[in-house]
Amino acid sequence: MPRTKEFKKGLKSHWGPLSGLSSWETVKCDHVVLNVKVRLLTIMKSQLAKLIDSTLVKATATKDEIERLCREAIQHGFGCVMVNPVYVGLAASLLKGSNVRVGSTVGFPFGVSLPDIKALEAVKAVEEGACELDMVMNLSAFKSGDYKLVKRDIEAVTAVKRISSDIIVKVIIETPILTNEEKITACKIVKEAGADFVKTSTGLFGKGATVEDVKLMRQVVGRDFGVKAAGGIRTYKDAVAMIEAGANRIGTSTALAIIKGAP
Amino acid sequence: MPRTKEFKKGLKSHWGPLSGLSSWETVKCDHVVLNVKVRLLTIMKSQLAKLIDSTLVKATATKDEIERLCREAIQHGFGCVMVNPVYVGLAASLLKGSNVRVGSTVGFPFGVSLPDIKALEAVKAVEEGACELDMVMNLSAFKSGDYKLVKRDIEAVTAVKRISSDIIVKVIIETPILTNEEKITACKIVKEAGADFVKTSTGLFGKGATVEDVKLMRQVVGRDFGVKAAGGIRTYKDAVAMIEAGANRIGTSTALAIIKGAP
Repeated sequence: MPRTKEFKKGLKSHWGPLSGLSSWETVKCDHVVLNVKVRLLTIMKSQLAKLIDSTLVKATATKDEIERLCREAIQHGFGCVMVNPVYVGLAASLLKGSNVRVGSTVGFPFGVSLPDIKALEAVKAVEEGACELDMVMNLSAFKSGDYKLVKRDIEAVTAVKRISSDIIVKVIIETPILTNEEKITACKIVKEAGADFVKTSTGLFGKGATVEDVKLMRQVVGRDFGVKAAGGIRTYKDAVAMIEAGANRIGTSTALAIIKGAP
Repeated sequence: MPRTKEFKKGLKSHWGPLSGLSSWETVKCDHVVLNVKVRLLTIMKSQLAKLIDSTLVKATATKDEIERLCREAIQHGFGCVMVNPVYVGLAASLLKGSNVRVGSTVGFPFGVSLPDIKALEAVKAVEEGACELDMVMNLSAFKSGDYKLVKRDIEAVTAVKRISSDIIVKVIIETPILTNEEKITACKIVKEAGADFVKTSTGLFGKGATVEDVKLMRQVVGRDFGVKAAGGIRTYKDAVAMIEAGANRIGTSTALAIIKGAP
């Protein structure tokens, strides 16, 4: 059944970015253009692991806990570990030679540092071995309606991408404290400012990531931009729901439980 | 009654640092040394206002809110306004010519930035007009038992005091997440590292400042060091309790309510 085979191949091409998989998609197979509702029902453990930023960013995280985080990331093939600046050097040394990327927070968790300081924090994190940077948007400027400053603040950090094309910058817009209109505005600013991902939340405020927010964010940024869902994602079911909604990265402090829950 | 007069004078001299006022004090009057239990029953509104750091450090604070904070601080004679780095410049321009000092947070609220970054954030804040710096201790290093790094982190910030002798550095040790033994260790490190104040908490964790913690901190650092109580102090009664326990500075986001509640 070549048609089925090609159809599957067509579908597969959509698995790459793993984005917008529960929306209507146009798929070509055997010169026939189909408009199909694609829904991700299962995802292979190893595929899921690669989408996970295994995260430990609480203020009191100890060295021992970070060491465990890194060991587990290597063991289960998580895409990235996300730690605070004070632990980037340690994580980088522990993950050397593995495929696990090192991520650092920037201006975490309030986003209230000046642009220059966020930029320096980003550079320092890269120097210490980070290649993924999860910065918090200047929420004070955003809520004051100073979108120019919000953009300038993000640009100060994305400038670090000049050091290496391998660097990914994600911007936390803190969805739980934004209106839908504000979420749309924030997503547009993040994209315009040259970041790679828009990210839901720090996990400190309200209910964290929701399916509705991730769908909205994917809709605003389009298919070729990153959407990271983070905050309150604790189970395999939660993670799959976020991926179905359009997330192509999952931030979680319970990565192990998620992977163990996978079929 | 010269004895009474002298006695009052003796008492008055203890009002300066406003510390340890509910403990037993040795007071000299007319060649007689008395050991008296001193208790602060009332404090004048204007005296209390000078001890208050009127604080607005939530991530979403708007420009309008900061402007109101500064107006109220001038009107009621608060000692200091405490804002996040993104608002130091604004606060400094609004408070120019007044007696209200400008305070900035550093590494707020998790304390997870590297020492170099905290140091630069402190310098930048001073350049923008701050003369009080409330930094968060490296809680990750503290909980990992790396006290050398904790001290080095504080020293990186206290180095900014070289710019001006007017600069005051306070260190938030986050009492709600420390054991009593850890609180004692933290106070000693803060004092050794050249800071001016040890401060209870950011207000983000648990119950914030307690009378017991303030008493303990005052006991550890002695009479000639600053103790700032912050976190959950909302009424005049709360504030007086903290001063009686040994605090000589109060951090609060409800400064107006506290002053209005004063007799």
